[in-house]
Amino acid sequence: MAHLNPTHDPARRAWVASANVPDAEFPIQNLPFGVFSDARRTRAGVAIGDEIADLDALLGAGLLDGDAAKAARACADGRLNGLMALGPHYASALRAALSELLRSDGARRARAEAMREHILVPMARATMQLPCAIGDYSDFLTSLHHTERHGRYKGLKDPLPPAFKSLPIAYHGRASSIRVSGTPVRRPLGQYRNPDGAVEYGPAPMLDFELELAAFVGQGNVLGQPIPLGAAADHIFGYCLLNDWSAKSIQWWEQVLGPFLGKSFISSISPWIVTQEALAPFRLPAPARPDGDPAPLPHLTDAGDRAEGGIDIALEAWLSTPSRRAAGEGPLRITSTHLQNLYWTFGQMLAHHASNGCNLRPGDLIGSGTISGADDAARACITELTNAGADPLKVGPEEFRTALEDGDEIVLRARAQRPGAVSIGFGECRGRIEPALSVAAAGRPR
Amino acid sequence: MAHLNPTHDPARRAWVASANVPDAEFPIQNLPFGVFSDARRTRAGVAIGDEIADLDALLGAGLLDGDAAKAARACADGRLNGLMALGPHYASALRAALSELLRSDGARRARAEAMREHILVPMARATMQLPCAIGDYSDFLTSLHHTERHGRYKGLKDPLPPAFKSLPIAYHGRASSIRVSGTPVRRPLGQYRNPDGAVEYGPAPMLDFELELAAFVGQGNVLGQPIPLGAAADHIFGYCLLNDWSAKSIQWWEQVLGPFLGKSFISSISPWIVTQEALAPFRLPAPARPDGDPAPLPHLTDAGDRAEGGIDIALEAWLSTPSRRAAGEGPLRITSTHLQNLYWTFGQMLAHHASNGCNLRPGDLIGSGTISGADDAARACITELTNAGADPLKVGPEEFRTALEDGDEIVLRARAQRPGAVSIGFGECRGRIEPALSVAAAGRPR
Repeated sequence: MAHLNPTHDPARRAWVASANVPDAEFPIQNLPFGVFSDARRTRAGVAIGDEIADLDALLGAGLLDGDAAKAARACADGRLNGLMALGPHYASALRAALSELLRSDGARRARAEAMREHILVPMARATMQLPCAIGDYSDFLTSLHHTERHGRYKGLKDPLPPAFKSLPIAYHGRASSIRVSGTPVRRPLGQYRNPDGAVEYGPAPMLDFELELAAFVGQGNVLGQPIPLGAAADHIFGYCLLNDWSAKSIQWWEQVLGPFLGKSFISSISPWIVTQEALAPFRLPAPARPDGDPAPLPHLTDAGDRAEGGIDIALEAWLSTPSRRAAGEGPLRITSTHLQNLYWTFGQMLAHHASNGCNLRPGDLIGSGTISGADDAARACITELTNAGADPLKVGPEEFRTALEDGDEIVLRARAQRPGAVSIGFGECRGRIEPALSVAAAGRPR
Repeated sequence: MAHLNPTHDPARRAWVASANVPDAEFPIQNLPFGVFSDARRTRAGVAIGDEIADLDALLGAGLLDGDAAKAARACADGRLNGLMALGPHYASALRAALSELLRSDGARRARAEAMREHILVPMARATMQLPCAIGDYSDFLTSLHHTERHGRYKGLKDPLPPAFKSLPIAYHGRASSIRVSGTPVRRPLGQYRNPDGAVEYGPAPMLDFELELAAFVGQGNVLGQPIPLGAAADHIFGYCLLNDWSAKSIQWWEQVLGPFLGKSFISSISPWIVTQEALAPFRLPAPARPDGDPAPLPHLTDAGDRAEGGIDIALEAWLSTPSRRAAGEGPLRITSTHLQNLYWTFGQMLAHHASNGCNLRPGDLIGSGTISGADDAARACITELTNAGADPLKVGPEEFRTALEDGDEIVLRARAQRPGAVSIGFGECRGRIEPALSVAAAGRPR
């Protein structure tokens, strides 16, 4: 397993107690980056247990120097784009310095712990923000199972598009409406076709979630110059959870040149970016292609990507409904899937994306597409969980769903795990459906 | 005709002589905004004849005050987003002040002309830049003729998608690869299917241009709050030409969820933004719908939009080839079309775009889609001009095209015209095809 360094040492523990509890999402081996605000201002930080190491405060206290200090200064504007642009070396230097400051048996513990109140902010007192300016957002379609099921629902003779096994299919998404976990999801108004064939504009029925993982681009490339697959991993800064909310009613009617208003009303992401480096202990070989599938073309083939293009990440979706909450019942786990259910690696997605010379910029977001697997439990959206409505999902004694209803809340979670490594988490991506505006209110200028 | 003000006065002339020549693109009635650079730095300006009024210099010289000064200060960072965000009143105040300063019979002429060397920069000494940061780029498909022809080439029984007359169809485009006129267009590498059915990666054949007009968003809207059609015009800052370069070979193979790498290698725009205000004298009723077509739904219907949702803009595409240039021959006009060939107005496009609550931001770009008309001369891409390759386009005594070849150059031009008004131009959108990188060069990390 390549790229392991002292920050991955499973024996290392933090002097922040909450980072050491069993199944902590943010142990000292994780150290994901994010942006948070409090009453004072917005700034970059790193999660440790249930606290946030405040990069501005660490700089101000003189606890960072050299490349680690340069890395922290690069995000002094309250977003991570500058750090992303510097390339993997600087984020790595900063994580190494933080690991030294936060480890329970480190030479710098005493000095850091003495300033604890100054350099650590409890998550409970912080509001997470988008971690960076997202210039472009692209979303892929890389689960064969998701794609085949949807092809079958549409009654296609060949449910898989011809290009599916030759290239990772993708489309451009809307960057402006990406919001951080916790932002309410207002049911969109939209134009759709009723069951009786009439077209109307109103609150969109058939709202769905889609469970995805997304990569943030680190270093970019110059327009016209592709990124070889062998270099792709160095262009990925890290990963977050993505809920690609979809109004299927709008999508089915509008879609000629891909998804547009059926998705652009909001996309939710988890606030912490788990770095490419933190995931090094969890790399797996790229998912095996089924026997008989064509080999990828040479520019989508690389020995390193084949050996460790996969990542051992389990992902879940949880649903809470108003009735369940009223009855004091917790959320229902409705999806358990794994990143290895994808047909293409993130390296292949990124290399394909830049293969025509398209320039990727630091902070660009690249979604995996819905991570559905072959198993029924691994269906990662309600459309699949209900076989396109044929088998409603039981969510309570007398309650079923074929789509999300107002008040429903979806929480996505993920965890990287591997024997011999300390498991790390992604935090959560949460969103609750709010009722739509009335058409009358939408028509009044503001 | 609404919204006319003194800046539209056809009797007004500039003391900059080049603004008064017949058919000048930038007479004093136009005053489009752009961003330019010289050896010193990058800054915002306004075109007048073949000169650029330097907004920083005008501010520094004390020639602007009040709302006009506030408008100029809003783009002191060398991009127009701040001015766009202020809403139409401020750009209008700045145009009014500039018109007063530049008019040949104005009270402020003497003071301004005395500082001519300081406040005017010859276009020949400036390099135009992108006018603003483009957060999101959306492209529409609003020409019925373009859509029907492409449907027929594909052999579709019903060449028009069912939703075409119910909503303006659109997709998200790539913002990072938008470049200003004059930027070379490198033929992309890409994956495509050969005539013999084999899939390969190499220099993409079947390169095409697409002639479009595009609107820049001015004031944005809050996520979740649609923009009523009656307010849409106030959210449009102005317009430019757009060449939506397309690698049809890539597009035909990859396209499942809309265009992706077939277009994201570059999109070219003209550098000057002709304002919504400057186009007020050229408004027309929205194009009439053919008899029997359904009326738009109420949220896409507005009396003001119906009365003046159209604009009298003629557009052209010109092709120059290496052989023509070697023979000393000028470019060939291959397309003559008109904005009224669109089925939907820009107001409808913008209102539809925000109808699900999607937030538009100042500087977002909204393309019209290829502006093809019913006439053969009004076919606005080579695919249509050649009936999808069946009738090659004659470009010289012995030379034909079914797609663009290396060295070919496309120039788009447009002009607003109306009896009683001084015609205004859009400048040009120019791009020349350069040979592709070799696959070997693309595979080397840089």
